[in-house]
Amino acid sequence: MFLQIARAVAEEIARGRLSRGSALPSTRQLAESVGVNRNTVVAAYAELVSEGWATARQGDATRVSDDVPKPIRVKAREARSGVPERPSYPLASRVGPAMVTRRYRYELLGGLPELRSLDVGELGRAYRRALSSRNHDALRYVGPEGDPRLRAALANWLRHERGLVVSEDDVLVTRGSQMALSLAAEVLLAPGDVVAVETPGYPHAWSAFRGRGAVLAPIAVDSNGLDVSALARLARERPIRALYITPHHHYPTTVTLSPARRLALLDLARRERFAILEDDYDHEFHFDGRPILPLASRDPHGSVIYVGTLAKILAPGLRIGFVVAPRAVLSAMATARASLDRQGDTVLERAVAELLDDGFVDRHVRKARRAYRDRRDALATALERELGDAITFEIPSGGLSIWAHAASVIDVEAWHARSLANDVLFLPGSRFALGKAPNAMRLGYGSVDVAGLREAVRRLRRSLPSAR
Amino acid sequence: MFLQIARAVAEEIARGRLSRGSALPSTRQLAESVGVNRNTVVAAYAELVSEGWATARQGDATRVSDDVPKPIRVKAREARSGVPERPSYPLASRVGPAMVTRRYRYELLGGLPELRSLDVGELGRAYRRALSSRNHDALRYVGPEGDPRLRAALANWLRHERGLVVSEDDVLVTRGSQMALSLAAEVLLAPGDVVAVETPGYPHAWSAFRGRGAVLAPIAVDSNGLDVSALARLARERPIRALYITPHHHYPTTVTLSPARRLALLDLARRERFAILEDDYDHEFHFDGRPILPLASRDPHGSVIYVGTLAKILAPGLRIGFVVAPRAVLSAMATARASLDRQGDTVLERAVAELLDDGFVDRHVRKARRAYRDRRDALATALERELGDAITFEIPSGGLSIWAHAASVIDVEAWHARSLANDVLFLPGSRFALGKAPNAMRLGYGSVDVAGLREAVRRLRRSLPSAR
Repeated sequence: MFLQIARAVAEEIARGRLSRGSALPSTRQLAESVGVNRNTVVAAYAELVSEGWATARQGDATRVSDDVPKPIRVKAREARSGVPERPSYPLASRVGPAMVTRRYRYELLGGLPELRSLDVGELGRAYRRALSSRNHDALRYVGPEGDPRLRAALANWLRHERGLVVSEDDVLVTRGSQMALSLAAEVLLAPGDVVAVETPGYPHAWSAFRGRGAVLAPIAVDSNGLDVSALARLARERPIRALYITPHHHYPTTVTLSPARRLALLDLARRERFAILEDDYDHEFHFDGRPILPLASRDPHGSVIYVGTLAKILAPGLRIGFVVAPRAVLSAMATARASLDRQGDTVLERAVAELLDDGFVDRHVRKARRAYRDRRDALATALERELGDAITFEIPSGGLSIWAHAASVIDVEAWHARSLANDVLFLPGSRFALGKAPNAMRLGYGSVDVAGLREAVRRLRRSLPSAR
Repeated sequence: MFLQIARAVAEEIARGRLSRGSALPSTRQLAESVGVNRNTVVAAYAELVSEGWATARQGDATRVSDDVPKPIRVKAREARSGVPERPSYPLASRVGPAMVTRRYRYELLGGLPELRSLDVGELGRAYRRALSSRNHDALRYVGPEGDPRLRAALANWLRHERGLVVSEDDVLVTRGSQMALSLAAEVLLAPGDVVAVETPGYPHAWSAFRGRGAVLAPIAVDSNGLDVSALARLARERPIRALYITPHHHYPTTVTLSPARRLALLDLARRERFAILEDDYDHEFHFDGRPILPLASRDPHGSVIYVGTLAKILAPGLRIGFVVAPRAVLSAMATARASLDRQGDTVLERAVAELLDDGFVDRHVRKARRAYRDRRDALATALERELGDAITFEIPSGGLSIWAHAASVIDVEAWHARSLANDVLFLPGSRFALGKAPNAMRLGYGSVDVAGLREAVRRLRRSLPSAR
């Protein structure tokens, strides 16, 4: 209350209605006219004095300071509002689109994991232990590389689960793979640099590269993954600085890069001196046979920046990602990170370190993988039965989605719009295209149970647009 | 184990020691020679098949695939190492200095709050409630603007504590003030743009601006804060895009910007169309009278981007900052944030929202403010007594540090080095200077108790270098 009064009086002074040196009304008088306790006005005046608007001298009225400046004229309408909608200065970057946060009953998104089976009680206990660390260690400023325990736990886990010969010092902790990509872009790219990307591909990665002024060069993907010959032709034409690739389960089609192309790619990267940004975002969710080892597991020349995340394993809201790369690269990324947000969330990082070390993460992965395989099979069966005439697809050996091509008579965009009206969300191929959009759709099954998938497919059937 | 075997065999194939089409040793034979269970070798071969290195046909040996590429020659030394130290590609940004994480017994740093008085039990319970939210809401992907409850709680708190007339939609949640500055730099600046900054000033902010290619223009600070006339002269000479300023407790000297300069600055910003980046990083810690209301509290034209943080109020490790600015600016910053790390940590954000709403934050502030005032007084008294002949300083009315000028015969850099040897860390003026370094020192008292401050000052006395 006293702040409101102080602000009102300060406004009067700033506008020149109370001039320099003039006495403010007595506290009693103002208290009565406003209808508040006199102490409130006393506090307001003390505030004005401490802010320099007024001066108080023993035995004299509180007076407007002699050094308040000439008034600025403010339109009455503006003065009433809080924060103006538009700034008084220009922006360098374009205003982005409003984020869509609408939720749908059946969200067939490939990047959404199952959360119901996550044991949040265990997570909560890990948090509590991290918080009550000796000496409040988890609450202090720390280095930007991430908590040493989490780096060690990740190194150990990557050695056992992903065949990477790494130690704690080879690992940088980030807030999800998105920050890893953003930091990699910062240390690799200058404006105008060329980054090769898969198409269809991952638009969030493209944003990170474009944010550094990079030029994107799309490379096609076929049933063996990225067309490495096309990449080699591009590299002969103009220097490329980096390739962004999802070799294990290509985003969004889930195809796996063939062994021959893997070796050819590593060889090309070394010769042409570009970085391979390998995004292994859902390594564990491979259903037919074991996961394929990453490119980074056989990278003797240091060509690969390996990026991973626990967002798909634990939960998107727990922002933990990681990078494995030559130490000179990690050091540059850590420096870039310090000026971005200084450091990670140590409480979360320690909680997750504990969950990795005591096997919680592995147990959860095994449980989730079984559920995902069942869902994949259920979705594939339902799609065959309900939509076998409208779409074609391969059953993916990994990942959390099915990539389906629609018959050419079907307009996938129209289908997408009609599905939303039936409370089913899937993403059409256009969302992943750099250039010509495939007449395809991504149908994620990670976060919808078997019964839900069947109902969603029935609704997709009902949402089919008439042939064009 | 089986992964190791698979990797070893894959290496042999990649190096050409096992040629295309040749049979792998029988599982029994290899198991005996390696000394493992035969099932382990069976699993290793299955891995090789699933990775495409080998093919298995009923009734035939497992054979090297026909499509493995020609071998890459790798030096033996390199093959044994894990991740190479240096990358095979060039980096755009320079490798940063290694981060210093050495701890000292007496850390007189201005930005370190008291952690011992923080009730981590209360914090832990808030975390647990946030985690066990209905429907795992706190673990999902959300918008980049921050959790709506935290935005509402911050808006309410800013209205009551800082005189800002704001609603939830006027607030963007960030990871500490550092991310707020980094996002502001991204939406405001293009390479070559001029940003005016205080000198001495805050180097972490400078990094954020330089990271976007900005040119820094230093403006002097005197006992009334930033020299606004000098800024006006600069603005006449060349267009400036933004001013970074800490008007409440100037970093690092703690002086407060005078009312006259505040109005002159707001007027100048509107006329010259630059953004005022107001960093109000420790608003609550004002000891003599009430805190001064921010520039943003009287900004009818939308010239101010107001930045704050809970790092100094709660703990540096809990990365919660916030921005108040015109919605067009917040929207652009939210878009930039999405490509940086997608979103905040919802569990933390909800826990903090609860702590704000139930008064925990205010109670902690009152408790901490009393402790800080006592520490300020104890440090000032000890400095007068022990070092009155060596330094001069004003007792700060706010902030968590004393800015002291050393007598000209004393070399502050030498003093700094000698103090470290006595386990006392303070930062010399050179760390805050853009241009000529003041022969001054910043003595923080936030995280050291009264007895510790007295001992630290005795050690400073002992560390005094001989006059130069």
